Amino acid sequence: MPKISQKGINMPASPIRKLTPFADQAKKDGKKIYHLNIGQPDIKTPEGMLSALKNIDFKVWAYTASEGTASYRNKLAQYYNKLNYSIAPTDILVTNGGSEAITIAMQACLNPGEEIIIPEPFYANYNGFACSSDIVIKPIMSYIDSGFALPSITEFEKVITAKTKAIAICNPNNPTGYLYSQEELEALRVLCLKYDLYLFSDEAYREFCYDGREFISPMHLEGLENHVVVLDTISKRYSACGARIGCLITKNKELYQTALKFAQARLSPSLEGQIAGEAAVDTPDSYFDAVSKEYTARRDTLVSGLNSINGVFCPNPGGAFYVVAKLPIDNADRFCQWILEDFNYNNETVMMAPATGFYSTAGFGEDEVRLAYVLNQEDLKKALRCLEKALEVYPGKTA
Amino acid sequence: MPKISQKGINMPASPIRKLTPFADQAKKDGKKIYHLNIGQPDIKTPEGMLSALKNIDFKVWAYTASEGTASYRNKLAQYYNKLNYSIAPTDILVTNGGSEAITIAMQACLNPGEEIIIPEPFYANYNGFACSSDIVIKPIMSYIDSGFALPSITEFEKVITAKTKAIAICNPNNPTGYLYSQEELEALRVLCLKYDLYLFSDEAYREFCYDGREFISPMHLEGLENHVVVLDTISKRYSACGARIGCLITKNKELYQTALKFAQARLSPSLEGQIAGEAAVDTPDSYFDAVSKEYTARRDTLVSGLNSINGVFCPNPGGAFYVVAKLPIDNADRFCQWILEDFNYNNETVMMAPATGFYSTAGFGEDEVRLAYVLNQEDLKKALRCLEKALEVYPGKTA
Repeated sequence: MPKISQKGINMPASPIRKLTPFADQAKKDGKKIYHLNIGQPDIKTPEGMLSALKNIDFKVWAYTASEGTASYRNKLAQYYNKLNYSIAPTDILVTNGGSEAITIAMQACLNPGEEIIIPEPFYANYNGFACSSDIVIKPIMSYIDSGFALPSITEFEKVITAKTKAIAICNPNNPTGYLYSQEELEALRVLCLKYDLYLFSDEAYREFCYDGREFISPMHLEGLENHVVVLDTISKRYSACGARIGCLITKNKELYQTALKFAQARLSPSLEGQIAGEAAVDTPDSYFDAVSKEYTARRDTLVSGLNSINGVFCPNPGGAFYVVAKLPIDNADRFCQWILEDFNYNNETVMMAPATGFYSTAGFGEDEVRLAYVLNQEDLKKALRCLEKALEVYPGKTA
Repeated sequence: MPKISQKGINMPASPIRKLTPFADQAKKDGKKIYHLNIGQPDIKTPEGMLSALKNIDFKVWAYTASEGTASYRNKLAQYYNKLNYSIAPTDILVTNGGSEAITIAMQACLNPGEEIIIPEPFYANYNGFACSSDIVIKPIMSYIDSGFALPSITEFEKVITAKTKAIAICNPNNPTGYLYSQEELEALRVLCLKYDLYLFSDEAYREFCYDGREFISPMHLEGLENHVVVLDTISKRYSACGARIGCLITKNKELYQTALKFAQARLSPSLEGQIAGEAAVDTPDSYFDAVSKEYTARRDTLVSGLNSINGVFCPNPGGAFYVVAKLPIDNADRFCQWILEDFNYNNETVMMAPATGFYSTAGFGEDEVRLAYVLNQEDLKKALRCLEKALEVYPGKTA
């Protein structure tokens, strides 16, 4: 039997999805599970997108241009320019979800063995993308006590070497929900110019900023035209994760042309996804107002509920729809499996993502979990109640 | 300005798509172009697929399982088992088009620097997938004089080294249309077992076999359960290139689990594409009968038309919807650009893919072009007339 590749062996399983078999078994056993483990919102997709899908009128389901249809890119440029990104449609490369945008950016910018600095905890799939491209993630620690604020520039500089090629941020952050400030971005701007580094900006959660705080993108900063690569997706903004439409944006023409070659190899993004994505840009503001109000309320419910449980600490994040909470437990992986396998409260339980999967540094996140507040408040409260009860009886309780 | 990666520099531009700017200019100049350059069929997508898309009833456009929905994989297994593949739904990993299936297979099976043997000319994007995974394609020559039959096993053995990990075939072949025989596949079976190699079988054109000839898959051969990886797509079968739905099939459980990790990193294939793909399996046989009849007639028109032009030779292929033809020209790249830029016949011209892009070995394919017979016969005849006229006046004519 031929051997699989070393990369295949090294490739991490999704820490978010690896508990799925235990959840499946729990469901088979008749338990109801509150899914706080995955960023799959329960929010309805805008009607305009679904109508666009239902009203497709093509007879041949054809390839589009590798970079996306002109029509969709024009519309996207309007959307970004409303946010003051000052970009042209030709700066936009439409991708199969944000995932492909990240993969293409990594492959186009970094050689195998070169390094990208990412504050941890970070979106676990970055490990998968890096592994599949043989590039190295250099994590620098952000801490729950500061709400996972950007590490100081000194910390970045400590790990910069001749191999460092890029810095990546996810803003607002998955998994921490932290929303980077103007000052933090300014500091990154200076750093990227000083060391001539790419700045990857994963903005999947751009629309999810709370408490009246403003979203700042590196696209708003001057002098970074050749450095910034925005990685985006319609998945979260419009609750359309299953459409698999994202994009890569850069004003760096050489990089764009390079990214395009990777895009050409896979031919094109989906036609119908782009049609729906184009319709999505016309989603009325009232949709986002309602969504933002809902998520703010959910966050408040979740964060205050968590902090009211004995031994639990959860910072109050400014964006996205995740929190990382510290629990009085010995081992998050064990706890998240145990709560599915060996626990129920009124025949219900909770699925969470162990935070260990979001840290690169071994030993971190063992008493932390990531929770996505993608359920209605009623369910969130029930999930919190479950968690509280579980912590009372978990054999590996530490506090 | 940060440097782009060496891989980004090495990454080949699509030889099929790189002439697009010249075609765009020709269109701007008012010329009508017959597109024989790309495998985008003009055949209508089955009504059942489009209806499935129009009748979607989800309210939240959600992620699916990374390996695809259970429902679609069950349906796909039925489809494959009708073809006697004897597979379970759990052997199927749904992908973002055939492209992603190929990428995942390469990454899961081969280490950077390891080698895959592919008879050339071969589907040009294999170069892109190999480059993006840092793996090495070892081409072995197939020749137009034999209609691009499989090279002899001796030729394969000549290039097998300790680094050889896999053999890939595309059957029926893109770009040559060659349909491999039972004997050729048997020979590959023995070879793969002898050297313990993976056998990648790209079967995008499975349904396109002519003259009553039967399609044979490595899945039909015994003893290769751990070696065969089928790479498939619904793009061509159902004229649904823009849906971006394909799959990877393997009975090798270790490989499947490894491939799944790559699939988890990119989360999931599109939901609506899988819904339509599921409906596609119920496409009535009458659809394929009509399509097969149409393509046979087109092939006959194209091949006989080409062979009637002075100095042109085109073998009569058994499958797919491509031919590679030899033309009396100095340089296929130059000719294919010239015919768009500097030529017209009654204000019409033809777009073709230079065969050079399908060969790895430098200097090959310079007097060959790939033509996709994806236009109706009327248009094919006009395109042939254009080509004939062009060859009469092309400055680089050799015969």
